[in-house]
Amino acid sequence: MQLNTMKDLYVDQLRDLYSAEDQLTKALPKMAQAASSSDLQKAFRDHLNETQQQKQRLEQIFSALGMSPQGETCEAMKGLIKEGEEIINTHADSQVKDAALIAAAQRVEHYEMAGYGTVRTFADELGYNDAKDLLQTTLDEEGSANKKLTSLAEGGLFSSGINQKAMAH
Amino acid sequence: MQLNTMKDLYVDQLRDLYSAEDQLTKALPKMAQAASSSDLQKAFRDHLNETQQQKQRLEQIFSALGMSPQGETCEAMKGLIKEGEEIINTHADSQVKDAALIAAAQRVEHYEMAGYGTVRTFADELGYNDAKDLLQTTLDEEGSANKKLTSLAEGGLFSSGINQKAMAH
Repeated sequence: MQLNTMKDLYVDQLRDLYSAEDQLTKALPKMAQAASSSDLQKAFRDHLNETQQQKQRLEQIFSALGMSPQGETCEAMKGLIKEGEEIINTHADSQVKDAALIAAAQRVEHYEMAGYGTVRTFADELGYNDAKDLLQTTLDEEGSANKKLTSLAEGGLFSSGINQKAMAH
Repeated sequence: MQLNTMKDLYVDQLRDLYSAEDQLTKALPKMAQAASSSDLQKAFRDHLNETQQQKQRLEQIFSALGMSPQGETCEAMKGLIKEGEEIINTHADSQVKDAALIAAAQRVEHYEMAGYGTVRTFADELGYNDAKDLLQTTLDEEGSANKKLTSLAEGGLFSSGINQKAMAH
């Protein structure tokens, strides 16, 4: 890795996110399978679809740059997924496990929000306006996915959340 | 690891954060040393002081629970720090390196915001009000540290940011 210019850094960061999304497309089906709540299963499956689209947006950005999205391994996502797998393989009450899966998934969403926030700003500063719009779309999706997980955990006015149900055990 | 109750999960999550803070106290001095901008060096050193206090708050919470904060290794923070170390060891323009260090640090802050947001909610739901207040204080500090990094990167009305300076190369 050589970082001589901001464009080098921008490309490096995009590749890190591409690796992160790629790892996530393999992890989300396992998280959906480990979840007990049907709403949580659905949230993970919906986010898998979004993740596949987010990967395609990155491919579109690399295609416009005439570069390959490959070449980086996102070490942080490796660690995040390892934590998710530890939860999947843990002996746990099913509703406590759901709460733990949400906690792991929210760490993933926050990682992605940080990453996409950075590249969206770089794209803007480097004058890549189409890329900026694509990255903003993904950033908004990650924010919404995170909020959805919070509402599943905490519940709302008319429904108790997964945390409350797990607390009863 | 056994997750039979929400209290088990709460303790497990707190230990994960304790490991994360512990790893970070070792990484932040290296990040400060690798930074060129004196403002960025100061931001990393200030955050090191905060991190030490955040670790002490966790010790206080464990002490009230009559439990040890040890026993978990935060795999995600291991990955995040590995990414930071890659940047430190990369041949890079000094201002591009500063922008890269900020990007890595913002991923760390987001990880911690996700983690502390979760345990703050768990503490509230479990009725640990003193812990909730301590965790909220840390959560607010992580949010402020993240905003500080954004303003160093992007600059303000009267000063250009690290990104703009790096762009000139």
